[in-house]
Amino acid sequence: MSIITVIGSGVMGSAMSFPAADNGHTVRLVGTMLDREIIDHAKKTNHHLNLNRALPNGIEFYQLGNLQTALIGADLIISGVSSFGVQWFADVIIPVLPDGIPVLSVTKGMFNNPDGSLTSYPKYYSQKTPSGDFCAVGGPCTSYELADRDNTHVCFCGKDIDSLKKIKTLLETDYYHISLSTDIEGLECAVAIKNAYALAVTLAVGLSLKESDTIRYNSQAALFGQSIREMRGLFKLFGCNDDNITYGAGDLYVTVFGGRTRKIGTLLGQGHSFKAAMNELSGVTLESVVITERIGEAVMKSITEGKTAADQYPLLLHIYDIITKDALVDIPWDKFG
Amino acid sequence: MSIITVIGSGVMGSAMSFPAADNGHTVRLVGTMLDREIIDHAKKTNHHLNLNRALPNGIEFYQLGNLQTALIGADLIISGVSSFGVQWFADVIIPVLPDGIPVLSVTKGMFNNPDGSLTSYPKYYSQKTPSGDFCAVGGPCTSYELADRDNTHVCFCGKDIDSLKKIKTLLETDYYHISLSTDIEGLECAVAIKNAYALAVTLAVGLSLKESDTIRYNSQAALFGQSIREMRGLFKLFGCNDDNITYGAGDLYVTVFGGRTRKIGTLLGQGHSFKAAMNELSGVTLESVVITERIGEAVMKSITEGKTAADQYPLLLHIYDIITKDALVDIPWDKFG
Repeated sequence: MSIITVIGSGVMGSAMSFPAADNGHTVRLVGTMLDREIIDHAKKTNHHLNLNRALPNGIEFYQLGNLQTALIGADLIISGVSSFGVQWFADVIIPVLPDGIPVLSVTKGMFNNPDGSLTSYPKYYSQKTPSGDFCAVGGPCTSYELADRDNTHVCFCGKDIDSLKKIKTLLETDYYHISLSTDIEGLECAVAIKNAYALAVTLAVGLSLKESDTIRYNSQAALFGQSIREMRGLFKLFGCNDDNITYGAGDLYVTVFGGRTRKIGTLLGQGHSFKAAMNELSGVTLESVVITERIGEAVMKSITEGKTAADQYPLLLHIYDIITKDALVDIPWDKFG
Repeated sequence: MSIITVIGSGVMGSAMSFPAADNGHTVRLVGTMLDREIIDHAKKTNHHLNLNRALPNGIEFYQLGNLQTALIGADLIISGVSSFGVQWFADVIIPVLPDGIPVLSVTKGMFNNPDGSLTSYPKYYSQKTPSGDFCAVGGPCTSYELADRDNTHVCFCGKDIDSLKKIKTLLETDYYHISLSTDIEGLECAVAIKNAYALAVTLAVGLSLKESDTIRYNSQAALFGQSIREMRGLFKLFGCNDDNITYGAGDLYVTVFGGRTRKIGTLLGQGHSFKAAMNELSGVTLESVVITERIGEAVMKSITEGKTAADQYPLLLHIYDIITKDALVDIPWDKFG
């Protein structure tokens, strides 16, 4: 059995302790400075405050100050930080990790560069620490349902297929199914851009609720299909393999049906401005919104430079206008197809 | 304004009368021999028995015996028959249609041939009547929501782009959005095979309901992603353009959320055998099941002939076993990816 240290005890990092613990590994869950209360509470009760579930028995809990202890003998690091913690993870955590230990990141998202390209978080980590083995999880997986041991199929990506195979052995269970890919940028792009399109598809939920109390699916499906079309266009623009649409589509599907992205898309569809919708959500900055802005900026840059045409992404650009210019929802149906 | 004659007054044929009537055309709805009661009732009440909605004002209703009258001066024929009526439509109706009038078919499905290939219904009609202009509607559209004027995006396919443009002009409204394609086999394949995969995705609905009263989405999304993967594999096998995945994915999405395909997939996931699930649905033969069998047979034939490998379609073949061998649900998770 191995020792797996999860750094960042948010819902997804903590959910990863389920397959890890079910496989009999020693799991050490380390909170960041934002997770003090989660760790304190879990130490006392074995219950996760935000996941709102009992954690597997035997998990060891650590506050960030005890990170060094939590790293002793570890075979795998799982990074459970959100996209807002990526720079901190790169600058503060990676330098103190033991050499040669692989890092599996659950964080979805990408940075956009001034030239209109995108950089995945594993690539960003590698740029800062070229000797590191930075892997990531992509594909459809909500933390709550992973914790409920619902059958889940994800893809682990990384540079080194042998390292990926070892990590898969550590974490695969009869409910957590894992494919492997060395196409880091492609997979990470797919599962980042789906955030923008999950917002887009859920606009139709709001639009139909505005008219009646019935949720309709023709309009959702029209937006889903257009999303698939535009996502494949983005793969081409960003030089990613088209096969990643499998993970992008699955991840889009699960994101449409869960969490705050659906809530905000629904509010927008019901007629709220973006600012008003964010107020309804108590102003919490959503990862998916930030990622959408970054993708939008990258695409706008590419359009300005003549690398692509605006008419390839009418849905994305509408979402971008909603978020950045507080535009109201007015689906550009006639620009689809 | 034009005259549009819809032959077959089932739910989808009748729903097409909404955009047609909203555009101010004369709409003639002709029942088949199976639709006598629908037409009688609609004549008296303007209400559609199965669509369970009032039809647009001004529609003319005809029993099949008055077909010739309903054809006088018609500019477009819409075929509203189900896949069980395709041979009848080819043999009995097409021969009596005026020359040169385009036919737009709403029927989804394909025939499978002894050599493992598939034939779309427009192609089948063309083989029988080479002079005809046979077009079809593909893409996500449930009849009920079209009748509710929910925003819907479909694709019309046919041999002649100019003819398609004319038909689009007749039927496009501010809620019924239409793309055009001359790739008949590709589009029709995409929207036929989604039937098998809609059954597959909804197995996860049943599986999660069997365990608790919660519908979970990780497992649905895993099956959705695998469906997209296999559908693209099938496009390759059947020589179809990969871009049709847009319509296939949208149509899969809408089918997962509606109708009897979801019901039967859910029952199967809950542990019923196929025979038991069909009994629950009063033994009504589902189009989607028949289409799934045909696709399955075509793929099995291709596998036998060494044109493709079984490991490319683990989900389809499992569905095929469930339907044809009364196998119980046992998702082959480890074969995905």
